[in-house]
Amino acid sequence: MSHTYPHPDLSVDQQHALFTAARRLADEFTGVFGAETIQRFLHTSYDQFAVHGTIPNYLPLLAERFARQRLHALARVEGRHDGRPVVLFLCVHNAGRSQMALGFFQHLAGERAVAWSGGSEFAAEINPAAVAAMAERGIDISREYPKPWTEEIVRAADVVITMGCGDACPIYPGKRYEDWELDDPAGQAVDGVRPIRDEIERRVRNLLEQLSIPTA
Amino acid sequence: MSHTYPHPDLSVDQQHALFTAARRLADEFTGVFGAETIQRFLHTSYDQFAVHGTIPNYLPLLAERFARQRLHALARVEGRHDGRPVVLFLCVHNAGRSQMALGFFQHLAGERAVAWSGGSEFAAEINPAAVAAMAERGIDISREYPKPWTEEIVRAADVVITMGCGDACPIYPGKRYEDWELDDPAGQAVDGVRPIRDEIERRVRNLLEQLSIPTA
Repeated sequence: MSHTYPHPDLSVDQQHALFTAARRLADEFTGVFGAETIQRFLHTSYDQFAVHGTIPNYLPLLAERFARQRLHALARVEGRHDGRPVVLFLCVHNAGRSQMALGFFQHLAGERAVAWSGGSEFAAEINPAAVAAMAERGIDISREYPKPWTEEIVRAADVVITMGCGDACPIYPGKRYEDWELDDPAGQAVDGVRPIRDEIERRVRNLLEQLSIPTA
Repeated sequence: MSHTYPHPDLSVDQQHALFTAARRLADEFTGVFGAETIQRFLHTSYDQFAVHGTIPNYLPLLAERFARQRLHALARVEGRHDGRPVVLFLCVHNAGRSQMALGFFQHLAGERAVAWSGGSEFAAEINPAAVAAMAERGIDISREYPKPWTEEIVRAADVVITMGCGDACPIYPGKRYEDWELDDPAGQAVDGVRPIRDEIERRVRNLLEQLSIPTA
């Protein structure tokens, strides 16, 4: 496979890791996307994490996960849609509010809808107080990771929920938008996060009802 | 529900989190274990993580995950066995070798076997170089967490694979044991971890063949 998006600054290790990731994605998206698109998505995803304090050894893994999500989004944008609604939760850091919303939504909707999250200035890691507050509800968000959003992700979404990213939130025509005004859990202890969590749960349940998505 | 294993030193937050965790576990193990056993397993699991540098906000979540695994192990020991073989991978830190072995085993065996891992002096977090080396093979071990082992976990295992815990490795009669001599990936860069990873893969594939477990 030719390297259509060369990265001369990467170590041999990182290049090798991205090469094997590209091969896996190419297998998964056979007949949907060619090597060039996959390389471009993988390497631009890598670049987005590389500037954000991510542990270098985790970069190829996160780049692959995010590239996979972006390629699924692009496939939807280009007409390969499975009929399930897509909801996108956005906030500033993608470490607290949008991750809690995603956690409740996935827990309640299961496989009946697709949900993603992102942040305008995404943090290096999930907010541990948000993890603790969600764990009280039996929902484990510790395995999620803060990430940005990209054009195809917003375009693939049917519903975009913004929570505090303000002017940085993307507005595209033809989508349903909601802005949820919520306190920012950043820097707060668990007892400060709990009321924000409960308000998010209330709004997610309300959203699911509006979208006629049955809950578990 | 009475607190049969009170923890007077815990904050109200942590007590609340453990209370909700106990309720969930009680629901899951209805008819198998009573509140007393569940409380004891949850609180002793909490204690084991509390002394190991775990982020305090993550303690209830990890305690619940580990208590769940231990309760499943105890159920097997007490005769509730689903017929699938159980393999336990042990090393010193449960951060590198035993996590890579678990990753390969689960990837290859899928739902056809049960596998756990543990460490004699378990680390605070997974070794990022091991995560990177496994990511090259498309296996994500970043969501695992280092943990100890307990008596019921060893007793529930049919096969115990030890990798470097030496005298600290538990030996119980009536089990199949194998000791794998492997370099320790602790402190090594990815290029030092790669040959260890490849040797672990070879041995895991061999083990699966010996156990007649078909691979994916």
